[in-house]
Amino acid sequence: MTATTTPLALSGEAQDLLFREARTASAFTSEPVTDERLRAVHDLVKWAPTSMNTQPLRVVYVRGDAARARLLPHMSEGNRAKVASAPVVALLAADVDFHEHMGKVFPHFAGARDMMEANPGRAEMAKLNAALQVGYFIVGVRAAGLAAGPMTGFDAEAVRAEFFAGTAQVPLVVVNIGHPDPEASFPRNPRLDFEEISTVL
Amino acid sequence: MTATTTPLALSGEAQDLLFREARTASAFTSEPVTDERLRAVHDLVKWAPTSMNTQPLRVVYVRGDAARARLLPHMSEGNRAKVASAPVVALLAADVDFHEHMGKVFPHFAGARDMMEANPGRAEMAKLNAALQVGYFIVGVRAAGLAAGPMTGFDAEAVRAEFFAGTAQVPLVVVNIGHPDPEASFPRNPRLDFEEISTVL
Repeated sequence: MTATTTPLALSGEAQDLLFREARTASAFTSEPVTDERLRAVHDLVKWAPTSMNTQPLRVVYVRGDAARARLLPHMSEGNRAKVASAPVVALLAADVDFHEHMGKVFPHFAGARDMMEANPGRAEMAKLNAALQVGYFIVGVRAAGLAAGPMTGFDAEAVRAEFFAGTAQVPLVVVNIGHPDPEASFPRNPRLDFEEISTVL
Repeated sequence: MTATTTPLALSGEAQDLLFREARTASAFTSEPVTDERLRAVHDLVKWAPTSMNTQPLRVVYVRGDAARARLLPHMSEGNRAKVASAPVVALLAADVDFHEHMGKVFPHFAGARDMMEANPGRAEMAKLNAALQVGYFIVGVRAAGLAAGPMTGFDAEAVRAEFFAGTAQVPLVVVNIGHPDPEASFPRNPRLDFEEISTVL
């Protein structure tokens, strides 16, 4: 696929890497994904914006056999083989207690932590902003030259109890990460057109 | 800011454009943003993944004076001057009735529309996936060489009634779009470290 002549500042090569040629992966090679690479993804996408810089996304990376065995039964059946084949599986969660970090992330407003703690919309704010960060994270995995396989087919309550007990973190999306098996590729599904989703006033 | 030696496939220039040098804009120059450019952003980010390819994001672009006058009173006071100065303001919403498009977006499974219609988690699914798409959208605005100014400080119920009446669309985030005024820049707030948000198992 080649870059089109759209008036974008991003290079055609980068457009292909992040969006046009990137595909959701459902099978992976055995090539490992290092912690250094996971850290590099974080160090890139951490700069993307969230409301009041709250950054509520939390991540549990499942790599070892023991942790993977704890995760597999909570995935929907159609997702288990994918999770079993991915070198790393990221459990992406929203931290409803993100306000505990406001002193660091919003240092110029001393009252931010207490204001957020008292905010009845805090859980919704955590989920919305963490979901934005899930979007950034998926782009970041692709920026690292890896494939992401995001999934929402899992028992969220069971994953919460198994991996996030004792916290206020709520799992949103599970993402397989690795090098895609080139033999396992599905035809791409259609996208909605600009006219179907947009109104210009 | 220069590219670091992180092991990413994306070029340092693109990393800077999308993440490291990109900043949330709070004031804009008068340089316009064409519909062609908005369409190019869509044509890039539409390829990013959503659950079952549902693509629940809907967008109302506010450009004209009449529409802007309808929006301004529903923004929180601190956001009104920003909205007034942005060439285009995008109202990003989740369509809870996304299932009406399943025939197009998930054509190989004829039962998808009815299954989604009956799904009690449909509203949550719409909001989660539209929020992922908000993340992609913000990256796409930056890919176009524009600045995004995302805001959650607005009266969501009033914006819904004013711009989304008669639909099942729920506004999530309002994004100012334009060329940033170089004189209006705040110091960047700290980000959470990998260790603060991650666990590797």
